[in-house]
Amino acid sequence: MAEAKVLSGAGLRGQVAGQTDLCTVGKTGAGLTYRGYDVRELASGAIFEEVAYLLLYGELPTWAQLNGYLNKLQGLRDLPLALKEVLERIPADAHPMDVMRTGASMLGNLEPETSFEQQRDKADRLLGAFPAIMTYWYRFSHEGVRIDCASEEATIGGHFLALLHGKKPSELHVKVMNVSLILYAEHEFNASTFTARVCASTLSDIFSCVTAAIGSLRGPLHGGANEAAMEMIEKFSSPEAATAGTLAMLERKDKIMGFGHAIYKESDPRNEVIKGWSKQLAEEVGDKVLFPVSEAIDNVMWEQKKLFPNADFYHASAYHFMGIPTKLFTPIFVCSRVSGWTAHVFEQRANNRIIRPSAEYTGVEQRPFVVIDKR
Amino acid sequence: MAEAKVLSGAGLRGQVAGQTDLCTVGKTGAGLTYRGYDVRELASGAIFEEVAYLLLYGELPTWAQLNGYLNKLQGLRDLPLALKEVLERIPADAHPMDVMRTGASMLGNLEPETSFEQQRDKADRLLGAFPAIMTYWYRFSHEGVRIDCASEEATIGGHFLALLHGKKPSELHVKVMNVSLILYAEHEFNASTFTARVCASTLSDIFSCVTAAIGSLRGPLHGGANEAAMEMIEKFSSPEAATAGTLAMLERKDKIMGFGHAIYKESDPRNEVIKGWSKQLAEEVGDKVLFPVSEAIDNVMWEQKKLFPNADFYHASAYHFMGIPTKLFTPIFVCSRVSGWTAHVFEQRANNRIIRPSAEYTGVEQRPFVVIDKR
Repeated sequence: MAEAKVLSGAGLRGQVAGQTDLCTVGKTGAGLTYRGYDVRELASGAIFEEVAYLLLYGELPTWAQLNGYLNKLQGLRDLPLALKEVLERIPADAHPMDVMRTGASMLGNLEPETSFEQQRDKADRLLGAFPAIMTYWYRFSHEGVRIDCASEEATIGGHFLALLHGKKPSELHVKVMNVSLILYAEHEFNASTFTARVCASTLSDIFSCVTAAIGSLRGPLHGGANEAAMEMIEKFSSPEAATAGTLAMLERKDKIMGFGHAIYKESDPRNEVIKGWSKQLAEEVGDKVLFPVSEAIDNVMWEQKKLFPNADFYHASAYHFMGIPTKLFTPIFVCSRVSGWTAHVFEQRANNRIIRPSAEYTGVEQRPFVVIDKR
Repeated sequence: MAEAKVLSGAGLRGQVAGQTDLCTVGKTGAGLTYRGYDVRELASGAIFEEVAYLLLYGELPTWAQLNGYLNKLQGLRDLPLALKEVLERIPADAHPMDVMRTGASMLGNLEPETSFEQQRDKADRLLGAFPAIMTYWYRFSHEGVRIDCASEEATIGGHFLALLHGKKPSELHVKVMNVSLILYAEHEFNASTFTARVCASTLSDIFSCVTAAIGSLRGPLHGGANEAAMEMIEKFSSPEAATAGTLAMLERKDKIMGFGHAIYKESDPRNEVIKGWSKQLAEEVGDKVLFPVSEAIDNVMWEQKKLFPNADFYHASAYHFMGIPTKLFTPIFVCSRVSGWTAHVFEQRANNRIIRPSAEYTGVEQRPFVVIDKR
């Protein structure tokens, strides 16, 4: 390996590891685009299924295409009995991302991708099934209820809320879920997407790729920031307490979740969108604490550290206002990002070489083996 | 991303993506070393558990350490009831690597790694449990038998054979299993190991890392070459037919599995070892077809293409002579490589930065959003 190049910086940061048509992150003039569209415009004018269609099929759908797609996805929501039986065997105190990972993996046994010609159908199947995987386990393990995995809701976001709460969600909540799923759908070569592409580069099946990606998203350096933000926000009972508490945390150099970003340097374009919706939800429920507390923390972080909220920070309060348990925040991320992951799998397959880097050897020199009697 | 460097060649080939103390591949004078020891010497003089201990604990064990380790691993073989019930729900025609992936993922729900201080215990748990995950599913789904997951065998290799065949394996077979598990234990930044490291770099749990790695090993460009070799070898009833058939396959430019290697250029150091043991097994069973057929293919490949057999080619006949069904060849790879994967996870955690490369954007320019009514 003497000839191998050592990359500047660890973690392959700033190193191009492949090509994509799907996304730009941090380019001047538009913080985040999906196939050329600014994510803020998509979040304003589209539903999540239009965005998933854009990522997976290449262009925004016409009405006829969207209706066909919604219809297809609705037919892919229910879970096979064997998968339900598996979910029933996962304890209530399991990590919800372990549940999502196991659900995706088990589905791959029951409905395997036997040819890459099935890749779009399998991606759609995962999109359709994830809300039920999450909520079937959650409600069985926490409430002892075997839910019906069908709903009347047209969209994945509405369907998720209907399964979680067992009732028809409000129009506002369905709208916010669509916005949220759009904001989280795709983000270039982040660690979970790169995991999916490394897996895809061995020409493995799409369930393996998505299962692997869930495992990476589970890590606290990747997914999970919105859950951590919620745990922090909930601790404060007033904006004043939040201001004092945040200053004290900064003083102690505690990690404050939901601020700053590895690639965005000035602001996260997703923040202004979800912040606006969180505010609207706060008004709807008559909140006088959680949103003001969030804003107080936000202000302190800007004044003291010039750090801006990222996509995760106001997601915490927004999800909370819709009655979503904190432990399901990162699984919702899976329901959305599976669109980006699978679109990247398609790309990797279309122009593939196995991803197999080299390592710099830092271990001991070659040495003779010593039999155990002489050690 | 304008400043990002485009790496020469796709697939990060020849690019250093990190450091390791574990392994050298293709260095002059020793084709493959684990922590400085030539794999051929390890395969000759050690059992697999000594090698797993070397990888996971840093040095070859003394007798006292080895006996303690064997004892520990023996206590980690049985499966929780809920995992057995999950395995019973996976159909007989499932891909066995999907079973291994789901088994690892489910175990992560039942016995989660809640702190990195548990990492060695969890790695050992996976080492202990994988033979039962594979054989419990196999014998339940194929024979309708609920096996006892305990055995009297001291080693993982012997334990696997005992569970598979329901009887005590011969000394020769136990020896060959140990050799095989040693040869497959570790191989630097191959795609599945790199998958595990990307996942680990988000600080995810070790079950996520191993589950992700299984997904990558499942791909036909990575694991599975020994299964493909077996399917080819079995087609020929004599060395003469194999010679003619291989020449015809080369003429048709068919892919012939089990030859050549992305990194080794002259020979695969693992081949001479497993070839010798396959020959001995052939003599034991009085084989007059499979081994001579394998040698005939080997000869044609060298004479016609100057291609050498890699680790996988003679593994096919060796496993077959021990009565192992072809579909379990790649899962055995998991039982071995989990030692290398988890050792790499330890390394990644000890000196971590999240692995997050960039992409070259090749998609459409930024464009204004068009509402669905106007598409």
